[in-house]
Amino acid sequence: MPKNEKTLDDLFHETLKDIYYAEKKILASLPKLAKAAQSDELRAAFEKHAEETEEQVGRLEQVFEMIDKPARGKKCPAIDGLADEAKEIMKEFKGTAALDAGLLASAQSVEHYEISRYGTLKTWAEQLGLSDAAELLETTLEEEKATDEALSALAEEAVNLEAAA
Amino acid sequence: MPKNEKTLDDLFHETLKDIYYAEKKILASLPKLAKAAQSDELRAAFEKHAEETEEQVGRLEQVFEMIDKPARGKKCPAIDGLADEAKEIMKEFKGTAALDAGLLASAQSVEHYEISRYGTLKTWAEQLGLSDAAELLETTLEEEKATDEALSALAEEAVNLEAAA
Repeated sequence: MPKNEKTLDDLFHETLKDIYYAEKKILASLPKLAKAAQSDELRAAFEKHAEETEEQVGRLEQVFEMIDKPARGKKCPAIDGLADEAKEIMKEFKGTAALDAGLLASAQSVEHYEISRYGTLKTWAEQLGLSDAAELLETTLEEEKATDEALSALAEEAVNLEAAA
Repeated sequence: MPKNEKTLDDLFHETLKDIYYAEKKILASLPKLAKAAQSDELRAAFEKHAEETEEQVGRLEQVFEMIDKPARGKKCPAIDGLADEAKEIMKEFKGTAALDAGLLASAQSVEHYEISRYGTLKTWAEQLGLSDAAELLETTLEEEKATDEALSALAEEAVNLEAAA
């Protein structure tokens, strides 16, 4: 098939592979973030999100099945870049009072990447008439938004914790 | 200063440099996206956002002034990765009916990166007592959210355009 005949189906499939790769990478990095976190609340938030991420990976595998494709990732430079930034922060702010704030910021940048990807995939699934897939993607999208809000609340609380210390 | 004495001020400054680099990169890439866009509406959206981005860069420069630091960027692997993904899509879907959908998706992933960064910076500015900076960051944050919503509306319209074609 010549390149210029690619369709929205192809774009959907490519982007599905991209977020599948990203979710696997996130799954591998969440235990590291949990270990690095200084506050119990932040550690618990990362542990909870690791469990959710496992379910999200399972949902993506269902979507691959729905379009008769093998569940396979594809190197995604965006999540690699986001992960590199998180590593930089962990290294530069290790042992400082600002570490948790930095971890929160990194985690939220990853959440927002996922929110944009799942929002896009859901819209495309609807346009392609894949309503079951759209529903699964919507479920994950709502989870990611809830996680981002929970992390925002923790980030805002931080000042109170420091003020009370 | 030993590394373990870094504070939230340092984290704020580092992250400001990161988004400053990102905004400059976005400013350079928007004309390319506008040129690649197939629909007039999408082209207009990119052109409008380029104008906004110039103002956002100006606001960041004001924030640098407020903390007595030179306005200087710092290589940000996240935006580099997002930009690489956009380039991949432009190359792989060039000349196809799905190109605009791909450009929209890339632009929205960048918007979400910015939303997460400005949200974080605004929270930190408040915690550091930099209320004027927090206000400037909030202004940009709201612009980025509005841009993301406008892009979402275009992405959803696409199906109607195709159905009408």
